[in-house]
Amino acid sequence: MPSADRYFSPDPAQRKIARELFTGITDLPLVCPHGHVDPQLFADPEYQFGSPAELLIIPDHYVFRMLYSQGVPLDAVGRRRTDGTPGESDPRKIWQTFADHFYLFRGTPTGGWLRDEFAEVFGIEEKLTSDNAQQIYDRIDAKLQSEAFQPRRLHEQFNIEVLCTTDMATDTLEHHQAIRESGWQRPILPTFRPDDVVLIDRPVWPQNIERLRELTGESVGDFASYLRALQARRDFFRDMGAKATDHDCANAYCGRLSVSDASAIFDRALRGKADDNDAEAFRGHMLMELAGMSVEDGLVMQMHVGSYRNHNGPFFEAFGPDTGCDIPTATEYTRNLRPLLCEFGSDSRFALILFTLDESNYARELAPLVGHYPALKLGPPWWFHDSFHGMRRYFDQVMETAGIYNTAGFNDDTRAYPSIPARHDVWRRACADWVAGLLVRGMIDDDDAQAMMRALVYELAKQAYRLD
Amino acid sequence: MPSADRYFSPDPAQRKIARELFTGITDLPLVCPHGHVDPQLFADPEYQFGSPAELLIIPDHYVFRMLYSQGVPLDAVGRRRTDGTPGESDPRKIWQTFADHFYLFRGTPTGGWLRDEFAEVFGIEEKLTSDNAQQIYDRIDAKLQSEAFQPRRLHEQFNIEVLCTTDMATDTLEHHQAIRESGWQRPILPTFRPDDVVLIDRPVWPQNIERLRELTGESVGDFASYLRALQARRDFFRDMGAKATDHDCANAYCGRLSVSDASAIFDRALRGKADDNDAEAFRGHMLMELAGMSVEDGLVMQMHVGSYRNHNGPFFEAFGPDTGCDIPTATEYTRNLRPLLCEFGSDSRFALILFTLDESNYARELAPLVGHYPALKLGPPWWFHDSFHGMRRYFDQVMETAGIYNTAGFNDDTRAYPSIPARHDVWRRACADWVAGLLVRGMIDDDDAQAMMRALVYELAKQAYRLD
Amino acid sequence: MPSADRYFSPDPAQRKIARELFTGITDLPLVCPHGHVDPQLFADPEYQFGSPAELLIIPDHYVFRMLYSQGVPLDAVGRRRTDGTPGESDPRKIWQTFADHFYLFRGTPTGGWLRDEFAEVFGIEEKLTSDNAQQIYDRIDAKLQSEAFQPRRLHEQFNIEVLCTTDMATDTLEHHQAIRESGWQRPILPTFRPDDVVLIDRPVWPQNIERLRELTGESVGDFASYLRALQARRDFFRDMGAKATDHDCANAYCGRLSVSDASAIFDRALRGKADDNDAEAFRGHMLMELAGMSVEDGLVMQMHVGSYRNHNGPFFEAFGPDTGCDIPTATEYTRNLRPLLCEFGSDSRFALILFTLDESNYARELAPLVGHYPALKLGPPWWFHDSFHGMRRYFDQVMETAGIYNTAGFNDDTRAYPSIPARHDVWRRACADWVAGLLVRGMIDDDDAQAMMRALVYELAKQAYRLD
Repeated sequence: MPSADRYFSPDPAQRKIARELFTGITDLPLVCPHGHVDPQLFADPEYQFGSPAELLIIPDHYVFRMLYSQGVPLDAVGRRRTDGTPGESDPRKIWQTFADHFYLFRGTPTGGWLRDEFAEVFGIEEKLTSDNAQQIYDRIDAKLQSEAFQPRRLHEQFNIEVLCTTDMATDTLEHHQAIRESGWQRPILPTFRPDDVVLIDRPVWPQNIERLRELTGESVGDFASYLRALQARRDFFRDMGAKATDHDCANAYCGRLSVSDASAIFDRALRGKADDNDAEAFRGHMLMELAGMSVEDGLVMQMHVGSYRNHNGPFFEAFGPDTGCDIPTATEYTRNLRPLLCEFGSDSRFALILFTLDESNYARELAPLVGHYPALKLGPPWWFHDSFHGMRRYFDQVMETAGIYNTAGFNDDTRAYPSIPARHDVWRRACADWVAGLLVRGMIDDDDAQAMMRALVYELAKQAYRLD
Repeated sequence: MPSADRYFSPDPAQRKIARELFTGITDLPLVCPHGHVDPQLFADPEYQFGSPAELLIIPDHYVFRMLYSQGVPLDAVGRRRTDGTPGESDPRKIWQTFADHFYLFRGTPTGGWLRDEFAEVFGIEEKLTSDNAQQIYDRIDAKLQSEAFQPRRLHEQFNIEVLCTTDMATDTLEHHQAIRESGWQRPILPTFRPDDVVLIDRPVWPQNIERLRELTGESVGDFASYLRALQARRDFFRDMGAKATDHDCANAYCGRLSVSDASAIFDRALRGKADDNDAEAFRGHMLMELAGMSVEDGLVMQMHVGSYRNHNGPFFEAFGPDTGCDIPTATEYTRNLRPLLCEFGSDSRFALILFTLDESNYARELAPLVGHYPALKLGPPWWFHDSFHGMRRYFDQVMETAGIYNTAGFNDDTRAYPSIPARHDVWRRACADWVAGLLVRGMIDDDDAQAMMRALVYELAKQAYRLD
Repeated sequence: MPSADRYFSPDPAQRKIARELFTGITDLPLVCPHGHVDPQLFADPEYQFGSPAELLIIPDHYVFRMLYSQGVPLDAVGRRRTDGTPGESDPRKIWQTFADHFYLFRGTPTGGWLRDEFAEVFGIEEKLTSDNAQQIYDRIDAKLQSEAFQPRRLHEQFNIEVLCTTDMATDTLEHHQAIRESGWQRPILPTFRPDDVVLIDRPVWPQNIERLRELTGESVGDFASYLRALQARRDFFRDMGAKATDHDCANAYCGRLSVSDASAIFDRALRGKADDNDAEAFRGHMLMELAGMSVEDGLVMQMHVGSYRNHNGPFFEAFGPDTGCDIPTATEYTRNLRPLLCEFGSDSRFALILFTLDESNYARELAPLVGHYPALKLGPPWWFHDSFHGMRRYFDQVMETAGIYNTAGFNDDTRAYPSIPARHDVWRRACADWVAGLLVRGMIDDDDAQAMMRALVYELAKQAYRLD
């Protein structure tokens, strides 16, 4: 069902060029420098996915948040409550509920990804309906149990050159170890995400600090020891192949505290006495510390900024985090990032990739910032904006001021492994259509167009994440 | 003069599809769930409009604000001053002034609406100029005095299935009573707008509270009695067919006060002692109370957020409110609406439709919010954004994340009754063009396209306002 | 190399109309009411430009900020450090560095301007590469030393009807004097920019106040004398042909102080005792004073709002101001400008042109404001937004609400004199493409289209700056 020219302009001249540009890069492998795929998939060479519902619906907040917005309880799509109440356990019923509501995804990226994934990964060309739901379930289920659908096989079929996972600072990286030891050659690299040991207002912070002690042998009883423990974990991640760190930032605030102030907050946090102001100040200071560590150890720093987590309080109580009720907020970068950029932004050893949920900053703050600071790159459209029109707004508002070479190419940021080709396909087609638009308007020439395509879909991601 | 393909893409493939999609829905009646038409038009079966100037210029702030911005005094278009000084009284002079400045509306929605209204309602195909102004005046004037231009006749000609007015909480709804008693079958439904009894900083608040006493028999001497009086008025409106309430919100702040704090502010307000902080806190609390009432009585809640009223102080002194000097402000929704959404946003009995003047929220806060909370829908582009390109930005920035089914379709929000078909025509054509764009890029299929069109121009408005 | 149809839609119908509209206005002279060209170019009839690097690279922050963002030190492009260390002195080496990095400008406005300037001013059709860099250097260098490239000759070739420079309040305007005395007929007009005598937190303020004393004979020892001195300078500028003033505003705040408060701050500033709050309050008050002066003397007021100057602290220390590290910030207009607009916004003697770096205000605050206040006009896309897609966003978000007649046409705002035709060319083509888009969608008719083109590229700028 997916058209060979999907996402391309209807104008014949532009479409022809877009098709040629797209065809010119289809052989390039996929580079996946940031995402949330479970490394366990690759640790066991014979790993098999679960049911279609377990693979495609239960874990995908894009899918179940849309159903919830139209009145479908999360229990009906198999989500377990925090009090232990299980959700619907019959994957066929879950699948039927999904099919009955599939019309909700008309014109959405989720609808497009699923359509393309069905067609190109599972060989299913029909549109999912209430009537054909069980028959399509059977076909997907059969595929999932075949050897060809073992993740390592799919990895080769998808032609993924490198894939980075996202891992807690206290993760033992056992699956990454197993992958290494298995001798499998495709790189699956960890990413150092220390939120749960840095954000002192997280309920899980104390237990993660305890875990940090166990893993590093540091006392973590004072700030200096805490910093040493973090560095030890970074070193371990780097030894395991990590190229980058990642930081969840409610806002972009950063700024140095005196060592004594930082130490005092850390002590209060250990004693459970830190307040909200402490948490904000400590987070801002730690971004400076972590940037300083990146300068030294070369790990590329990523900041994902501006999500108000768990917005729907009662719903969060019932179903826990990452269940589709995180909501973006307006974000300020120019003033907030200044301390970090003044200190590190011109250091050639440093690399910072920014992700925003506030598109009003594309043209206003972010494109001008990345167009000046050598260490700074802008990440691709993120989360709610990772869609065809989201990409068009990004190209439109970022590229003229920043230049494409100050951006970080694409990453799919997905948990849903089999959706990876579909997500890169949207980006590649959106790039082809945008570059073709510049060419057909005489703003660039043929050579520019081909070089830009190659950069956008392959080279920039590798360069930004220091993967080459 | 208006082209049969107006607003459609020039691309032949997209234009052909847009035309077919548009043709496919032209027989659907108009649904008008929110607007400011005077119900008196329909109370008297033989109602006749006044002069062309009285109908088309003097009451239309879109029109006279543009003239004013280019130096035409409001007196010259017939606006009376607050001190009683009448404006220009000769409707032909007013009309000539308008015609002399008609070029100012080039490329504006007002220019398009008027062109289409002239052609399709009045049968005037020529463009208005200084030279033909008086001749066109004569032709419109003659039409307005014909029986075919009685509002009830136009209503049938326009094929309006249902029209909702906007009425103060203290309105006796006498015109709605008269319409009912006349036995006329087309529903003209009131909407409960309690701003003048809820916003304690409005100069008219005391007299409206007094009126509330008279109408309800409640003492309204304390907060509890005040709430009972409001509920009594809601009940009356509901008995008269109301489906919705409407609230003018300078910002989106809401939050509960303790009963004693709310009561204390109410008491201060009665004594004329409430300050600005009181007014803000009381407004925020009342949104919670009103949402709670909606849960119980089923009236759909509308919030129109973000207008700085009467921005030009001296001008407001001279000409009063609603004279074209309200200016939008930046608005925050994620934090401000959270208390209301946590309490009511997942309640299937509740329905809230949001309207924004700050488009930077479309993709950032609003699409993600309506894509999660079952009770929340996003209203169509409002006021300054109710234009062809405003609609395109709305489709572009909202729909991929929210899905069309979390939006509320269209409403014309107009005071200018004969402009209703022209306004819906722009929406319908903009929808056809947008959906055709998705189809021609292979993002949806034919069935999707037709279902989306029907939803966008007819079904969603009925569902969101519980009109079916 | 530049296509004759560059920037036009690929759709054949729209392209044909755009080409016709563009052709219809190519004979109109360029109007340049705001920019930063050095008047010295015209004072000496035989003025010759320096080397290609001195003309095109060393002074152009658009160029060297892009190189810097990719790791090229500013020294390598010939910028002198504030400590006196000279940059690279060989213009051929600088040129080679530029050519080696020319790919960075793919798809950027700088890339387009340079391409068109090379072709149309210097007759160079090839794209600049590392290989042909020195050969192209030779060809440009030869041109620059020819008589045809004397600025007065170019001025006539470019068909510039009027060009306004930007000059400090304490400038003696000696070059403007010399131009006048030479009898050359093309108007080169000064613009009064008093930032360095108004912004009391600028380090250069004391010496500029001293200079103000010398130039005016006023004591400038108190606030009243200071205001007299400013008025004296305005009178001088007006005598020298100035039509406008210009003000750099970190934000849009304005508001009156009492005379005694303003005087007290001024006194503290003279004694070096003013703090940041004083500076903000004084700036806000002075905007009111300066607007009042404009009402009396008729100079058009310009406000350029929202730049965070010298964001990269260490870099600013090393290289000084205007070196590409100014970054936009979010800006609020509705509340901030209200005092000024309430007092002067409806006065027909007053004219204020606003420039924004925060596009989220186009549709939200600015289009509604200029669509009401007679004295207010919106300036064209500025700085980071002066690009083809920036112009499209401006047309899209401003014009329907504001109407084109509440905008100020185009100005090139450039320091780079030979780039003027290329910059106007982008605007003219973007206008033609946008107007053609309205026409081909049936939103305007042929007469509208031609009138709008003429207004956008010629008339509006002259009217807004009172040049006719």
